[in-house]
Amino acid sequence: MKRLMLAAATVAGLATALPAAAQFQKPEDAVKYRKAAFTVMATHFGRIGAMVQGRVPFDGAAAAANAEIVRQVATLPFAGFVDGTHGTEKGTPKTNVWSERAKFDGEAKKMQDEVTKLAAAAKANNLDQLKADFGSAAGTCKSCHDSFRNQ
Amino acid sequence: MKRLMLAAATVAGLATALPAAAQFQKPEDAVKYRKAAFTVMATHFGRIGAMVQGRVPFDGAAAAANAEIVRQVATLPFAGFVDGTHGTEKGTPKTNVWSERAKFDGEAKKMQDEVTKLAAAAKANNLDQLKADFGSAAGTCKSCHDSFRNQ
Repeated sequence: MKRLMLAAATVAGLATALPAAAQFQKPEDAVKYRKAAFTVMATHFGRIGAMVQGRVPFDGAAAAANAEIVRQVATLPFAGFVDGTHGTEKGTPKTNVWSERAKFDGEAKKMQDEVTKLAAAAKANNLDQLKADFGSAAGTCKSCHDSFRNQ
Repeated sequence: MKRLMLAAATVAGLATALPAAAQFQKPEDAVKYRKAAFTVMATHFGRIGAMVQGRVPFDGAAAAANAEIVRQVATLPFAGFVDGTHGTEKGTPKTNVWSERAKFDGEAKKMQDEVTKLAAAAKANNLDQLKADFGSAAGTCKSCHDSFRNQ
């Protein structure tokens, strides 16, 4: 969303886009928001996983609908990583999200690129490509979690 | 999402779209999902509210980006209202979500129609129309909450 907001502001020639932190009234709101966006994304990504792993029958139209939602929502959570919202418990972000922000943003970008490919494969009803792209996209989740999430 | 899944399945001529309940492993997953989708939607709707109510400067590009996210996410939460997930506490759904499902689905549809108009007004950079459509969309939230949500 931050990228989207900034891109939108650039297009309009405005300098009024707020920094990510200012988009949320309180840090807790940012945490709730990013967790919510990840929940929505993971739900729809998981449904594709169930299909590519043969746990439910493959349904190309359903895969395409789910993958498109994943692609859209994948841009959202990262604006919720505002200053001061790291943690120490399992599943919370480590401080290096902020100290290595460029690397973190790069991981997010890789994920967004992979789910864009995933959505294209699903739309093309190409199950073999969908399986490959699902694996690549899942790999970007794991890579980012390994580096930036408390285990 | 249920509508999207069913529509997608209809387009493909398939009968394999799962009923909403079967899309979630457990009722708690459906509850978590619908709350997450509403959180994302409310966050972006609220940012438009801040602009139309003059609490932050109007930024047409940001309004359009936020409204488009609202429009996309507005289709999602209702699949999460699976059987057995009513409640009694404030903010939880009342049993009439299920006993009056057609009315509930109608309220959802009204909201989706209003946020589609909202996104169009934002895209057109029409602040007067955006204000009117924001009010109408907010009215559909209130109407549904008044009927179907524990106070």
